[in-house]
Amino acid sequence: MGVTEDIVRFVDESRFDALPDEVVFRTKTLIADAIGTMLAGSCEDGSRILQKYLKQSGGREEATVIGAGFKGCASAAALANAAAGHALDFDSIQLSSWPGTAHGIRIHPTVPALAAAMAVGEPRGISGKFLILACVVGIEVACRVTEAIPPDCYQVAYQSTATMGGLGAAAAAGKILGLGQEQLMRAMGLAATMAGGLRENFGTMTKSFHSGRAAEAGVLATGLAESGFTSAPNILEAHRGFFLAMGGKHDPNQISGKLGRPFFLEDPGLHIKRYPCAILTHPSIKALIELAQAHDLAAEKIRRLDVGVSEVVTSTLNHPEPKTGLEGKFSVAFPLALALRKRDVGLNDFTDENVNDPKVRALMNKITVRADPKLQESGGNEVTAKLTIELEDGQRIERLATLEKGRAQKWISESELEKKFLACAERVLPADRAKQTFDMLLRLELVENIKPLTELVGMSA
Amino acid sequence: MGVTEDIVRFVDESRFDALPDEVVFRTKTLIADAIGTMLAGSCEDGSRILQKYLKQSGGREEATVIGAGFKGCASAAALANAAAGHALDFDSIQLSSWPGTAHGIRIHPTVPALAAAMAVGEPRGISGKFLILACVVGIEVACRVTEAIPPDCYQVAYQSTATMGGLGAAAAAGKILGLGQEQLMRAMGLAATMAGGLRENFGTMTKSFHSGRAAEAGVLATGLAESGFTSAPNILEAHRGFFLAMGGKHDPNQISGKLGRPFFLEDPGLHIKRYPCAILTHPSIKALIELAQAHDLAAEKIRRLDVGVSEVVTSTLNHPEPKTGLEGKFSVAFPLALALRKRDVGLNDFTDENVNDPKVRALMNKITVRADPKLQESGGNEVTAKLTIELEDGQRIERLATLEKGRAQKWISESELEKKFLACAERVLPADRAKQTFDMLLRLELVENIKPLTELVGMSA
Repeated sequence: MGVTEDIVRFVDESRFDALPDEVVFRTKTLIADAIGTMLAGSCEDGSRILQKYLKQSGGREEATVIGAGFKGCASAAALANAAAGHALDFDSIQLSSWPGTAHGIRIHPTVPALAAAMAVGEPRGISGKFLILACVVGIEVACRVTEAIPPDCYQVAYQSTATMGGLGAAAAAGKILGLGQEQLMRAMGLAATMAGGLRENFGTMTKSFHSGRAAEAGVLATGLAESGFTSAPNILEAHRGFFLAMGGKHDPNQISGKLGRPFFLEDPGLHIKRYPCAILTHPSIKALIELAQAHDLAAEKIRRLDVGVSEVVTSTLNHPEPKTGLEGKFSVAFPLALALRKRDVGLNDFTDENVNDPKVRALMNKITVRADPKLQESGGNEVTAKLTIELEDGQRIERLATLEKGRAQKWISESELEKKFLACAERVLPADRAKQTFDMLLRLELVENIKPLTELVGMSA
Repeated sequence: MGVTEDIVRFVDESRFDALPDEVVFRTKTLIADAIGTMLAGSCEDGSRILQKYLKQSGGREEATVIGAGFKGCASAAALANAAAGHALDFDSIQLSSWPGTAHGIRIHPTVPALAAAMAVGEPRGISGKFLILACVVGIEVACRVTEAIPPDCYQVAYQSTATMGGLGAAAAAGKILGLGQEQLMRAMGLAATMAGGLRENFGTMTKSFHSGRAAEAGVLATGLAESGFTSAPNILEAHRGFFLAMGGKHDPNQISGKLGRPFFLEDPGLHIKRYPCAILTHPSIKALIELAQAHDLAAEKIRRLDVGVSEVVTSTLNHPEPKTGLEGKFSVAFPLALALRKRDVGLNDFTDENVNDPKVRALMNKITVRADPKLQESGGNEVTAKLTIELEDGQRIERLATLEKGRAQKWISESELEKKFLACAERVLPADRAKQTFDMLLRLELVENIKPLTELVGMSA
């Protein structure tokens, strides 16, 4: 049995009642986090352009476009919502959890699966339990396929969220449509064939559009498969199939026998982001905020900051000289300048204004980012960074900033999640409505029909 | 200046009045041929499933879905029409014209460009001249980018029509929207990022869906770029860009300085298909029909038929044992069995019934297809086939079947084109309406508004 068949069987056979409590709990958290980032991202410029285009194109009003005040057909809603959910680069992410993988080139699996599941689930009036199950399945498929591709294959041009995201979205939507194994196989053939998304587009509106297209592909693939559309079976491992296009190598043992045993989101787990920018800078940001507080560092006291990083960082973060807020998310120096100046890196900081603020730029000019091959040799991983601060008074401060491997990631606390959610949601919803949404998400498995939820998040700012 | 910028400038600067008469004439022919294949393909099973799905999804009724009796939003119409136009594998194709290329892995450039141009052109009431110009530009971009990718890169998993087709569609739609160079650059960044389409899906409904997605991508990319959506510049040649994803190599000299100098469709030219199946079998089909007529070959007289082909044929035609009509288009033995039995290979022959007809299968069992490395060594090209027929009476008939290189392709005559068009169109249109459509297409440059044309082809059978 090939890996595509393994996946199809896994999706078909999964049942809510068989999910461990911990998996249900974590998935609710991931869904709440994703709804938060969808709300927050829905008012970003790129999201508004996309929403306007889709609204003008019209369509059956069956699925809510979050934070936008209108409904569209399922595929359009999936596209808009998954693009919004990734627009701030603030949605949950898979981390490296073993030596065959690497941070930063993993997937953001939750948003495409959730957006696809909600888009087909809303018109069908599905329950919270069913939505959770669909997300469990979609996240599992996306993460396991991502694990199967060795890091050197990521040196082809694709963003994982764009490519594997569509497979996860198809799994999630296919579960809700109740597709049988034959139809699921066809849906995988279609979702895989729609995979695209070039990493060159990092730092532009198109990066989050990739997440949207993944969700849309999941909806379209399952809708067509349900109607009898044909595609090639075993598409992942087939001769001219998905893995060939993704760089030509894969390890079937990362999929076969591993689906749901345990669920990836349980062990090693996913990571809920604390900062709305590329994960590769998070350890440095956190360390620098701590140092700034401990040493009362003000910008004018700093002569220079030297940041040693791994090659993955310099090759993935393609905007060393950002000119827009979006590009700033793919820079090392910009968020570090924010961390030093504000002692925080928040939701509303990645603006064109901040990137071009002369004071910020003056500080960025003091920051040198360089690849340091020794960092990984000495047992760190590819997000480990070596910070060396030289003060005007001659003092030197050094810090090795690390992020734990995925397996050891501390799960987010409910209060921390609530704080993040409300900050996100209140960009478009009134505070009471944001709180009401959060409370509903915390008890999602008790919700009989997700329509009240989609109504809450549908309004526009 | 990079190749993406070359393309953007070419699209922006192209003008109808500067087109050579021969280019206008040939483009009209290509458009007529493509409208014919769209009509013929619109009633294929896959097309009907897709149309039904899109109709249910709804949308602004701005663009005609050909042969389907309804209108949809521009992106939906582009998707449906370009899928229909490729559903029979009967649309025009780029052939190998120099040693750095190969037959069979080139592009079907016309349908995605035309479908995208019509979808955005119809609501704007554009003229026939403008439609011709948009197609000239779209076909040129798609063909030149395809020429830039060396044949070994096609051994990655992609179908050219799916990938380069989207760039051509974006060029065509962008021309009609009147995008400036900055917007065209963004549209290319978006179209390239949407490129997908795995060759494993040959012989399924998804192959023609690839053509549809290319056209849809062109419409979406240009519509979003027009609205201010951002993407990475220079996407084709950029570090993590399109050419990397397409196999990692490209020759910029096939693009720079070559766009419109001359137009590819003029020299070496495109090929108008005579048989509705993979081009790689066409020389054998033609030769076998001639032999069957000359020697009055009946199926029962034939002991065996040995077909020596190049490796490109056996690796591309992925259904040596077809079980469906669609798979039969990617088989060598099935169309050859048709050629022997019917002395013709026509529009309505690729059915599940015919593929599973015991008489056809008995004949297919007499046909052996094998890779013969000597064929190319001896100066033939990759569609050259060596046919050896052994008759029951012991007689042997040999024939080397070749297809001229693209440059030398004889252009189709008007009467031959009309015959093909009417056979195609009459699958869904009454005969008088089909003829009326053909006549309008022949004088397309005189049509002030394409709406009467879209009205003619919009009706459903």
